[in-house]
Amino acid sequence: MISVEEARARILASIVPVGIEIVPLSLASGRVLAEDIRARLTNPPQDVSAMDGYAVRANDPDPRRVIGATAAGHPFTGRIGPGEAVRLFTGSVLPNGADAVVIQEDVARDDDLITVRELAQPGQHIRRKGRDFNEGDVMVAANTRLTPRHIGLIAASNHAWVPVRRMPVVAILATGDEIILPGDPLAPGCIVSSNSHALAALVRACGGQPLLLPIARDTLAAIAEAADSARHADLLITSGGASVGEHDLVARALASRGMVLDFWKIAMRPGKPLMHGKLGEMPMLGLPGNPVASYLCAVLFAKPALERMLGLHGAPPKRVAARVVSDLPENDRRADHLRCKLITADDGQLEAHLHGMQDSSMLRALADADAVILRAPFAPALPAGAAVEVIRLDDLGL
Amino acid sequence: MISVEEARARILASIVPVGIEIVPLSLASGRVLAEDIRARLTNPPQDVSAMDGYAVRANDPDPRRVIGATAAGHPFTGRIGPGEAVRLFTGSVLPNGADAVVIQEDVARDDDLITVRELAQPGQHIRRKGRDFNEGDVMVAANTRLTPRHIGLIAASNHAWVPVRRMPVVAILATGDEIILPGDPLAPGCIVSSNSHALAALVRACGGQPLLLPIARDTLAAIAEAADSARHADLLITSGGASVGEHDLVARALASRGMVLDFWKIAMRPGKPLMHGKLGEMPMLGLPGNPVASYLCAVLFAKPALERMLGLHGAPPKRVAARVVSDLPENDRRADHLRCKLITADDGQLEAHLHGMQDSSMLRALADADAVILRAPFAPALPAGAAVEVIRLDDLGL
Repeated sequence: MISVEEARARILASIVPVGIEIVPLSLASGRVLAEDIRARLTNPPQDVSAMDGYAVRANDPDPRRVIGATAAGHPFTGRIGPGEAVRLFTGSVLPNGADAVVIQEDVARDDDLITVRELAQPGQHIRRKGRDFNEGDVMVAANTRLTPRHIGLIAASNHAWVPVRRMPVVAILATGDEIILPGDPLAPGCIVSSNSHALAALVRACGGQPLLLPIARDTLAAIAEAADSARHADLLITSGGASVGEHDLVARALASRGMVLDFWKIAMRPGKPLMHGKLGEMPMLGLPGNPVASYLCAVLFAKPALERMLGLHGAPPKRVAARVVSDLPENDRRADHLRCKLITADDGQLEAHLHGMQDSSMLRALADADAVILRAPFAPALPAGAAVEVIRLDDLGL
Repeated sequence: MISVEEARARILASIVPVGIEIVPLSLASGRVLAEDIRARLTNPPQDVSAMDGYAVRANDPDPRRVIGATAAGHPFTGRIGPGEAVRLFTGSVLPNGADAVVIQEDVARDDDLITVRELAQPGQHIRRKGRDFNEGDVMVAANTRLTPRHIGLIAASNHAWVPVRRMPVVAILATGDEIILPGDPLAPGCIVSSNSHALAALVRACGGQPLLLPIARDTLAAIAEAADSARHADLLITSGGASVGEHDLVARALASRGMVLDFWKIAMRPGKPLMHGKLGEMPMLGLPGNPVASYLCAVLFAKPALERMLGLHGAPPKRVAARVVSDLPENDRRADHLRCKLITADDGQLEAHLHGMQDSSMLRALADADAVILRAPFAPALPAGAAVEVIRLDDLGL
């Protein structure tokens, strides 16, 4: 059995980033930028007004004569001379000759003459050319997951097209004679396939494109043929059949197609049987069949793998500090992941309340959990009130 | 000027939830469930084994004779009598007559006889019928934003179709003679439209469907006609033209189409000009033209409005505690939102580092910010090290 950290490192080492595609700006949010985006213009393009008011020469005496006005898209093209002013608005280009803007609330206007109530300082209320960015500046760096703010920045840089990593195709294979598709008629002894659908949703949420393979029956031939359908995927994830029981055919079936097995057991609970290997160039992850273990292994291993494919780092899920409200026993050699609810206590600290049933077949308790408490191998017993680290599933959105 | 809280309450009061559509399970993640999902089956459907091993009668003496085996989807249909055992695997239905499971590691097998090394307790390693859920149980409640875990739960409940709120259509209108679309040729004095593209991405991230209207020129007729194109949207958001300057035509143009104005000024910085009204049945939000104000008003007002349309509560963005590392001056009567970076200090606390330039026209500084520090109206001056509340933009994914 290898550790969670070693397993993740070995999985990531088998991953290469996928290629690049061009998408329209409108569809780029949430995607991972593949190349730096540089500004195609300078902003502001000239010195501009930061307020609605009048462009003036700061040191001129009052009253001043208004000799023109700007409007959005229609700059004033003349020049301000001694004792002159030009009406302008936020964002208007500062007319030649002006060195300050006075705001309209500070001005008394009588026909074309204005008097300024507050002393003007040279440079006031002017946004200088390039204050936000200059042509050629890197606006968004490659390998950034794009948010709506980045989309605004790329738009302002005058780009309509965005180079992003294409969505990695993740083939998902569920195996088992007893498995049916959701909504299909239920015979006695049957189980509805749920892990593979949760996995597909997780793959999509992480920026991948799921390819849900037909359920393979429990024969070597059926599983091997299903793997053939996955040949052009970027990653194959199998669900179930990864342990060493008599009915665990996945490893043997894939071996018949040339899979090189890396490891198949990790020191983790829930989730001991986790298989990793390569089928030709394609990495494969064999997740345990049990729902909680399947989901946690996806969060701990498949999510970083997808991120690495997208050119990101593939860091483990973020941990935050919490306070456990009940005693925790000493842990054995397997890293444990205890499902819990989080409550913000009166002192502002997060309190972790363990679910009564930690049975890893319990899908419903998993859906209710806010977080998992991390228990390192051989972690000592902890009293109620002790500090623990948790992974917030609610914040992950997964 | 009304407060941020009153503005949000008045906006939410103008919103009704949108209708329901049916989507396939594979496309339901991230959508908001419109009706309770109830289990169509019981899980486990019978008492089943929690381990790979043998079904036995706990109090029988060893050795026991193995009279059969189960396999996934192929239950053992006989009955276990005195001194008998049946080979079975995790999830196998417990054969009639058995009252315990012994795990394979604890068993010595010699041909069809087994000897159990550990004393068996009645009920051990059995998952009882319905332990996870029972037919008819509410598995996921209406008005839940679905995550991959919910998708697993809905699949396990044997549903292939999911009733969700349809995506609210949000018409986005940018106005201005000087505005061009990203990538279009740039003439002097022009500005590339960026707010509306950031807004469209934000609408999509919140579960809405953006409808990006053509840019309206600065005439009453052009803006009124653009509003006509938005007639069947669920919400109209305008970008820019919301303040009281001479070129702010939006209110007048929409009034000519019958808009009932609710308010147009809030006690907030950046973002004072925020307009809210109704055009027939359609609510409208007029966001300020300045990029940082536009974005923050979208996070504080448009996001809750969209959530309310989806049947969610529309709560304000979550706040967390942080420690500011520099002095903050006393605040005036407008709620302030200071852009900052967050760093986790050695003691585990979040430190908020203010951006040097809080100029609200600075798109690039906004994209770099991790959070905004909230400063209530008339908040007193704070020394470096004081506690503040921040909205984490990084965690929002916006």
